[in-house]
Amino acid sequence: GKAPESTDFANYFCTYAYLYHQKDMLEDHKRTGAYYNAVLQNRRQFHGKVVLDVGTGSGILAIFAAKAGARKVYAVEATDMAKQARTLVEANKFSDVIEVIQGTIESIELPEKVDVIISEWMGYFLLRESMLDSVVLARDKFMAPGGAMYPSHARMFLAPIHTEAGARRNTDFQGSMEGWAEFIGEMSAYYQVDLSCLSEPFRREQRDYYLQTSQWCDVHPSQLLGPGTPFVSYDLGKVTVEELKAGIRENFEMAVVEAGPVNAFCGWFDVQFRGSDASPADSPVTLTTAPDPTGATHWGQQSFYCVPPIDCAAGATLKAAIKVDRRRDNHRLLAVELAVKVEGQSGGARELKWNIE
Amino acid sequence: GKAPESTDFANYFCTYAYLYHQKDMLEDHKRTGAYYNAVLQNRRQFHGKVVLDVGTGSGILAIFAAKAGARKVYAVEATDMAKQARTLVEANKFSDVIEVIQGTIESIELPEKVDVIISEWMGYFLLRESMLDSVVLARDKFMAPGGAMYPSHARMFLAPIHTEAGARRNTDFQGSMEGWAEFIGEMSAYYQVDLSCLSEPFRREQRDYYLQTSQWCDVHPSQLLGPGTPFVSYDLGKVTVEELKAGIRENFEMAVVEAGPVNAFCGWFDVQFRGSDASPADSPVTLTTAPDPTGATHWGQQSFYCVPPIDCAAGATLKAAIKVDRRRDNHRLLAVELAVKVEGQSGGARELKWNIE
Ligand SMILES: Nc1ncnc2c1ncn2[C@@H]1O[C@H](CSCC[C@H](N)C(=O)O)[C@@H](O)[C@H]1O
Ligand SMILES: Nc1ncnc2c1ncn2[C@@H]1O[C@H](CSCC[C@H](N)C(=O)O)[C@@H](O)[C@H]1O
Repeated sequence: GKAPESTDFANYFCTYAYLYHQKDMLEDHKRTGAYYNAVLQNRRQFHGKVVLDVGTGSGILAIFAAKAGARKVYAVEATDMAKQARTLVEANKFSDVIEVIQGTIESIELPEKVDVIISEWMGYFLLRESMLDSVVLARDKFMAPGGAMYPSHARMFLAPIHTEAGARRNTDFQGSMEGWAEFIGEMSAYYQVDLSCLSEPFRREQRDYYLQTSQWCDVHPSQLLGPGTPFVSYDLGKVTVEELKAGIRENFEMAVVEAGPVNAFCGWFDVQFRGSDASPADSPVTLTTAPDPTGATHWGQQSFYCVPPIDCAAGATLKAAIKVDRRRDNHRLLAVELAVKVEGQSGGARELKWNIE
Repeated sequence: GKAPESTDFANYFCTYAYLYHQKDMLEDHKRTGAYYNAVLQNRRQFHGKVVLDVGTGSGILAIFAAKAGARKVYAVEATDMAKQARTLVEANKFSDVIEVIQGTIESIELPEKVDVIISEWMGYFLLRESMLDSVVLARDKFMAPGGAMYPSHARMFLAPIHTEAGARRNTDFQGSMEGWAEFIGEMSAYYQVDLSCLSEPFRREQRDYYLQTSQWCDVHPSQLLGPGTPFVSYDLGKVTVEELKAGIRENFEMAVVEAGPVNAFCGWFDVQFRGSDASPADSPVTLTTAPDPTGATHWGQQSFYCVPPIDCAAGATLKAAIKVDRRRDNHRLLAVELAVKVEGQSGGARELKWNIE
């Protein structure tokens, strides 16, 4: 297969070639344990089957499938991590079952159709990294009729939260503005150059960075001002790449159970392993990245700061319209827009925007 | 002109489009003040001349040249920062003199030859970012005979130092190995997968990262165990791109004034503004990034850790052979090899290698 194109390598693939990064994912035991259960508690759905692991990384999911009795596993990995996967498969005595193929899934061929596609493709806020495109392409190219996707379903959630982090970012933003004022004073005094014409561009750039860039966070459930609302739901056996490229446009409501102010929105996802209609999982498994008192998965959640905050009373309803799109400058990154309004309050909706870096 | 190619944009140019990054460089007043002096103390070498600023960024050096009475300044910038430069030039009333051109210097044309090329192209350890290639190309393409390069000369230095940082990196490396041992224990216990075959690749990857990657540092002169030895010297009016691409191969000596152990080598550079033979600077200026008790420029110095350290007595001489090359995977980054031996000691040279990230 072909190596990744060089810009995509620089922007996305490069970190996956490091064992350190694969280890970070492997030792997220909520993640790895969920996949272990999804496969080993559903051996009947793997036994004697042909399996494709899209983005095998270290080879771990391919090994789980082999342990569940798969007849053959194709483990495809775009980066040089494929070599390590081959070593791991050999050392664990699965070379007769697992064939590691180095190359992008888009560029490789397989000698047969597969019964199961397993992949761990999820990024921050589910869709960051846009790897689902590659998994869907693999499904369309390689899956036999009635085959099962592992996971089979995915949902994205948003909830109003309380956090001090937004106020800290705002303080940092103000500090950055004060630093600029000192800086242009120096530039004028030392070099007689007037940089005040760049103050507004600098302010916009810094506001973008401090307030309009979402952040990885590990939110405690006590910060939730209301439950997470699932605003989009995917059937991974049916979703198309066109639908994914078109982005998300959804209207939904968020219940506010505790009084605000709402100074951020918290986003997360879950995936479910239910098998296919033709081959349903004996033991469905859910992997969630919702706020957890014992701590987050490596995905954390995403905090979307709302400065100034939104005041609302306990029992209020927030009416929301969300847009999630890939960014034009880098399709691996996302841009989110949220129009949100307290039901029953006069005035227009708050129009909020963030980049996911 | 053309925008940068997309992989080079992802690897190199992208940060320069941010005012925050331009501000970091502008407010390094040892840097900006040296260029101010180099131009404004040498007005006669700029007055009535045609000047080219390669990589104008915010436009600052072009503005200095205009203040010194240049007849015309071409200010070339590859990124969208060119738009901010145009704003700054306009606000400071130099639009009649300074023409900002957006595009890579490699892709643009000028209507005339220039008398002076000014550029701030230096990266960590002088050559990181490999921007000097672009400045030399500009000289060959656009400079009139007898024209002057600002700066005109550059040198790279290496010195033996004492630092605790290398020992800390080594401790972190050991910690990373202990973490791996725990991790493979878990993977075996939880999932019955044996990752011990990856222990050696992981150790090499981590050793590379912790011990064989040079680090930005702000070395205090009291850490120097001997003076910096200039091991390479460039005449920027004459150096060729071929010479730059061929890399550095130099033999030199470092005097050890204070007893070791030498647990790192410290690298830095200086540049000089002497004008050209045809048009020598009235007031030569040197910008050095050597260890400074009042703190480093934004370039800092580079620490190259030596684990285990080299024992040597006060008065010893270290005989060294250095190689500096661009990295094959990314020509903007460097690889350094140093063979070093205490003069008079038996045994072979220590063969040390580092990546500059
Ligand atoms: N289009 C593509 N083709 C092949 N591999 C891909 C790919 N897109 C992403 N990948 C790989 O998919 C992996 C996703 S991370 C998951 C790794 C492993 N399956 C585990 O669960 O631990 C990365 O190693 C990445 O390099
Ligand atoms: N080949 C090339 N063509 C045009 N601009 C380039 C270039 N290589 C680097 N640059 C630009 O050169 C700048 C170097 S940083 C120096 C900025 C400014 N002259 C100052 O002294 O403050 C960056 O803005 C970078 O985008």
